[in-house]
Amino acid sequence: MSPTAQLILLVIGFSIFGLAFAAYLARWVLKHSMGSEAMQRISNAIKEGAEAFLRRQNRTILTLAVMFAAVLFIGYGFVRSHREFDPVGSSMQLAVWITLSFVLGALCSVFAGYVGMWVSIRSNIRTATAALSSVNVALRIALRGGAVSGLLVVAMSLLGVSGLYALVSAVGGVEPTKIPLLIVGYGFGASFVALFAQLGGGIYTKAADVGADLVGKVEAGIPEDDPRNPAVIADLVGDNVGDCAGRGADLFESTAAENIGAMILGASLAAAADKAGMGFSAGIVGVMMFPLVARAFGIVASIVGIVMVKMDKEEKMDPMQALNRGYYYAVVLAMLAFGGTSYWLLNSPSAPNAWWHFFLCGIIGVLTSVAFVYITQYYTEYRYSPVQHIAEASKTGPATNIIAGIGVGLECVWMPALVMGAALLSSYYLGKTSGLPHAGLFGTAVATMGMLATAAYILAMDTFGPITDNAGGIVEMSEQPEAIRKKTDRLDAVGNTTKALTKGYAVGSAALAAFLLFQAYMDEVAQYAGQEMHAVNLANPVVFVGGLLGAALVFLFSAMAIRAVGKAAQSIIEEVRRQYAKLPRLHDIIQFPADFKPDYGSCVDIVTRAALRKMVAPGLLVVLTPIGVGLIFKVFITAQDKLIAAEAVAALLMVGTITGILTALFLNNGGGAWDNAKKFIETGAHGGKYLTTADGKKMKNPTHAAAVVGDTVGDPFKDTAGPSLHVLIKLLSTITLVLAPLFI
Amino acid sequence: MSPTAQLILLVIGFSIFGLAFAAYLARWVLKHSMGSEAMQRISNAIKEGAEAFLRRQNRTILTLAVMFAAVLFIGYGFVRSHREFDPVGSSMQLAVWITLSFVLGALCSVFAGYVGMWVSIRSNIRTATAALSSVNVALRIALRGGAVSGLLVVAMSLLGVSGLYALVSAVGGVEPTKIPLLIVGYGFGASFVALFAQLGGGIYTKAADVGADLVGKVEAGIPEDDPRNPAVIADLVGDNVGDCAGRGADLFESTAAENIGAMILGASLAAAADKAGMGFSAGIVGVMMFPLVARAFGIVASIVGIVMVKMDKEEKMDPMQALNRGYYYAVVLAMLAFGGTSYWLLNSPSAPNAWWHFFLCGIIGVLTSVAFVYITQYYTEYRYSPVQHIAEASKTGPATNIIAGIGVGLECVWMPALVMGAALLSSYYLGKTSGLPHAGLFGTAVATMGMLATAAYILAMDTFGPITDNAGGIVEMSEQPEAIRKKTDRLDAVGNTTKALTKGYAVGSAALAAFLLFQAYMDEVAQYAGQEMHAVNLANPVVFVGGLLGAALVFLFSAMAIRAVGKAAQSIIEEVRRQYAKLPRLHDIIQFPADFKPDYGSCVDIVTRAALRKMVAPGLLVVLTPIGVGLIFKVFITAQDKLIAAEAVAALLMVGTITGILTALFLNNGGGAWDNAKKFIETGAHGGKYLTTADGKKMKNPTHAAAVVGDTVGDPFKDTAGPSLHVLIKLLSTITLVLAPLFI
Repeated sequence: MSPTAQLILLVIGFSIFGLAFAAYLARWVLKHSMGSEAMQRISNAIKEGAEAFLRRQNRTILTLAVMFAAVLFIGYGFVRSHREFDPVGSSMQLAVWITLSFVLGALCSVFAGYVGMWVSIRSNIRTATAALSSVNVALRIALRGGAVSGLLVVAMSLLGVSGLYALVSAVGGVEPTKIPLLIVGYGFGASFVALFAQLGGGIYTKAADVGADLVGKVEAGIPEDDPRNPAVIADLVGDNVGDCAGRGADLFESTAAENIGAMILGASLAAAADKAGMGFSAGIVGVMMFPLVARAFGIVASIVGIVMVKMDKEEKMDPMQALNRGYYYAVVLAMLAFGGTSYWLLNSPSAPNAWWHFFLCGIIGVLTSVAFVYITQYYTEYRYSPVQHIAEASKTGPATNIIAGIGVGLECVWMPALVMGAALLSSYYLGKTSGLPHAGLFGTAVATMGMLATAAYILAMDTFGPITDNAGGIVEMSEQPEAIRKKTDRLDAVGNTTKALTKGYAVGSAALAAFLLFQAYMDEVAQYAGQEMHAVNLANPVVFVGGLLGAALVFLFSAMAIRAVGKAAQSIIEEVRRQYAKLPRLHDIIQFPADFKPDYGSCVDIVTRAALRKMVAPGLLVVLTPIGVGLIFKVFITAQDKLIAAEAVAALLMVGTITGILTALFLNNGGGAWDNAKKFIETGAHGGKYLTTADGKKMKNPTHAAAVVGDTVGDPFKDTAGPSLHVLIKLLSTITLVLAPLFI
Repeated sequence: MSPTAQLILLVIGFSIFGLAFAAYLARWVLKHSMGSEAMQRISNAIKEGAEAFLRRQNRTILTLAVMFAAVLFIGYGFVRSHREFDPVGSSMQLAVWITLSFVLGALCSVFAGYVGMWVSIRSNIRTATAALSSVNVALRIALRGGAVSGLLVVAMSLLGVSGLYALVSAVGGVEPTKIPLLIVGYGFGASFVALFAQLGGGIYTKAADVGADLVGKVEAGIPEDDPRNPAVIADLVGDNVGDCAGRGADLFESTAAENIGAMILGASLAAAADKAGMGFSAGIVGVMMFPLVARAFGIVASIVGIVMVKMDKEEKMDPMQALNRGYYYAVVLAMLAFGGTSYWLLNSPSAPNAWWHFFLCGIIGVLTSVAFVYITQYYTEYRYSPVQHIAEASKTGPATNIIAGIGVGLECVWMPALVMGAALLSSYYLGKTSGLPHAGLFGTAVATMGMLATAAYILAMDTFGPITDNAGGIVEMSEQPEAIRKKTDRLDAVGNTTKALTKGYAVGSAALAAFLLFQAYMDEVAQYAGQEMHAVNLANPVVFVGGLLGAALVFLFSAMAIRAVGKAAQSIIEEVRRQYAKLPRLHDIIQFPADFKPDYGSCVDIVTRAALRKMVAPGLLVVLTPIGVGLIFKVFITAQDKLIAAEAVAALLMVGTITGILTALFLNNGGGAWDNAKKFIETGAHGGKYLTTADGKKMKNPTHAAAVVGDTVGDPFKDTAGPSLHVLIKLLSTITLVLAPLFI
């Protein structure tokens, strides 16, 4: 067997191991008890709502994907004529490979998302039941349930890329270094699905949440997850389809796209090194396979981390500490493996320092993700001044609360921008000084790989959030005793933290990855055009306008996402108000009759329809804008400037990425800060939730009411538009990668 | 006399004529009656507050400017060593010219702003008095009072540039085409003052406005401009120092910076044409003088437009129509003059089509400004669906109102982005096909000049806003009869429209102008480095990080501006609540005793101190960031890449500009839309301001209250952060122009 085949088999083997371990974890979770009938009734309602939505959503997404696949196939097979530099011999072959990998990427992404959610909506009830006896068991069920998602996503994405690579190799006739160009469609298919999944799920979850909160908490004055709120089941369903399925699709495509992008860059680097007579000992293909091998070891490291998570015997420790311990294991192991892989595959005898330079780049990637996580904490936790400042501003009403929150959101971008800048420049510098020619950009790529090494663990922590959130909801709605609620509340609080942190991680990875992907794009354009793409020259008006349109796209897309939530939430509010209209009130507070039975189904139905309808337009906007710009700007192509359209698209991508990252940070952290400002007040700050009037009556604290306004505004920011922007950034990169040949 | 001297004299002559006419208008305004003593008392309070603030603000700004001038002088005179390509023979000469023009620019800007405001705070009382008898006279007083500002600003800026040019010529020893490089400091000095003036004024006006509205309208339920509101005088003062003085400084620097930038580009174009043997009949200097001459004729066109404004005999027409009529006169005349000037100065015998190509570019500029105005109207007036949608969303409370408003703000950027893109590309294309070599970029520059041709008229309309706003306030506070209020309300409504439109114009001009200025920057870098600056290559990580920091700067700056308003407004609210604390209440509505005397002074004092303190940090941030990036990134300079630091600064500038324009549009239009959604409800939509309860009592309409929250949030958006961003964009351009030699 050739060394290449061995590497491929190794990667495929590890991916299958990851999948098998996911199956093992799923079985482990499922064998736990499902608790009382009351709890099951609620859990089943959530399950049904979530599965019904996901089925309908997947049907819509796959229909769109099939249409797009047809366009791709026709575009490449019939419209675009064959070029000398194409990696395969005919247009038809190119069309087949690109379309096939697109379809495969889409299918795998849908599959990973569906199975992951299948497990997590079965983990919530088991977590709730376990919480009746032990926080430790509940914690482990929630994490392992989340880990099924995490492992599935990372392993499937790796398996898809390596499997496709093996398939193209087996069919033969393609230079190994050009294979990545044929399978970029896999990443794009995954992004395509991710965008719609995140958008649809995000609109669903926040429309339900905003609607439920505004009428439930604000108008009716009942607690969160109260069974008397007709929108509460929709809200709990939303946690699954938005946070869990959406983020899974997001990271599926991240790992897929970045693997392929890094392979393209690795192949160029190794080819350039060979030409300079400084070839790697593992050969060109070895360097190209480096990202896949490093990721494969990362899966194992994440598994070890997940298995290590448990609490102390007395269950006194902060559950977050237990999760962190697992994370540290995963990181340390992943970095050791990363170092080993660097030494193995990135060793060039004539540049003896190269491997450890790249290893350091990987460490920079990890440190960047840690920095993003800390910055996110600073801006969104109420221990620190930004959130406290928002809470303080709530004293003078909702307007000053909103002004303060927007201030915090806009402010928070500067530190991540500096960190990203430092990470990019230092890894670039390390690559440049590695002793190999043109290795600077590969250095930035390796930093991205380092950052994503523990993606499976991070994703497990992320899915932990909705599972514990749901478990808390089930406990609350089935009216369990206070002591049990306290336990699930402990887990839920940790879940909120992990959700916020992983969002920080997702932006950071999007930022680094985007830079990797547009280097891959330029490389690809150069290969197809047979001419170096020297620059993306913003000083050229055509390119500048491309950049301007990229930034405008980010704004317009965010607007559409946010407005979709606003409109759907309004429908929910009107529906709940309709159901509440006839209830008696005292001092503006609804007095619920004992036999009040809300109609959950109508709310689930409203958000399902709204989410499916409203995800299409923004999704298509993102897909079509770069294509449109690329094709229209072809009119500016001249003999001296063959690449001008491709360059304008690159600017769209880069400026869109910069604006997208900052806007995502603004939306995510602004939203998170508002959320926690409200929670801070609920701990009793500034008077807490209720005040007592002079005559001893309980009245709503206007400061808290103001904070709830901010929290509500933040919902579509942090859970719809923000996370969808991460996907937008990556989709822009992958779509341009796939369509680059059309722009030349 | 040489032809150059003749051109310079022409420009200086027209500038002086503009100043003389401004003096005539001021005398015309001042000779009108000042009305009753009650009205004068209020007007005097506004006058005192405004003058006191402006004096203190100018002192602070000039102190900062002197410090910065010292740094410039030392940097150029002692730190930076003389280079072969410097336009003058020694470092000291360079330092003297740059510092001198900086100081002069700063002083002229301060002077123009001060005198303009001096006149407008004297126009408000006269407008109010005139409204007692005739809307026509009131309209003319307000417009002519505003025109003093407009003419002063444009004429002073032109006089400064042409005077400095004449001075450098007279001293001698400098190649004419290099003179603009020495006097770029004038534009930078103006920007420096503009930034602080706009920021300080913006913080002042909105802190007072937000504070006054929140306690006055929302809590106490009294109308706007009610004399019982302790913050009302501060609010009226704010209209002057923010809208009027701030915008004046903004456009002063626009015209100054763009004149110089266009001169630099003109000189390059003409030199290139000469080299290719296609020289212009008016010579290199003629082309270089083109922007100044075109602007000089624009002053005359604006004067004619201003003089033409009057209403019909019955005073039935919409005052807006009267203003538009004047505007059309000004535009048509300016375009005729523009065409003539193009034919005169941009004629090249070997490229006979060139002049009309450039003339068309000018027309594109005008059309762009018109398109911006219409788009602004669509997104901010309640005749159209965006504002109606916000009003509709207010029915479900403040949270959905805010979500809807942010949605509209984010959405509105796409059309201006397309228009800008189309304007840049079409004028670039016209320049490219003019028959002259490398004329594409000069085409975009000419489009900018076309857009700014009627700047004086636009500025007059803009200052018309605060004058009529104040006149309305004076009428309201001196408790004039309903019929008089109706008259001033008519004018005030028009003033609100003109303010919104001119803001659209200001963003549009900032966008086009920025592109002009960074071409000038690249040209300048090339001249100093003695090596073409080929590209601003975003694909280079160093340059990319520059761009990223530019975008982050925009976000951070906006955050600081918005938070400054939020904090200062909170102090105002607390102060007013303190004054209201002991008043009796009925049904949550304050019952004011007849003898209630609010303390206006304390509120004026609070905002004055807050504005002065809080304008310094964001201002310095903008000034220091590009300098810091340029100097730090010098470590990446290598023999192959001499210009990398200059390139990174260019990316900072360009990506910062793109992000800045879109963010400014978001803030301006979002804020404007919220404002008008509230006004729409006040016309009676969705129940109007008050509802009647079942038992016939008047109660606050919660829909209106929700809309007031949005209006309040929008205040710092549209009048502090948004307009300050226009200045930020231009300051980035001018600062890099002045400091370019340091980055090489």
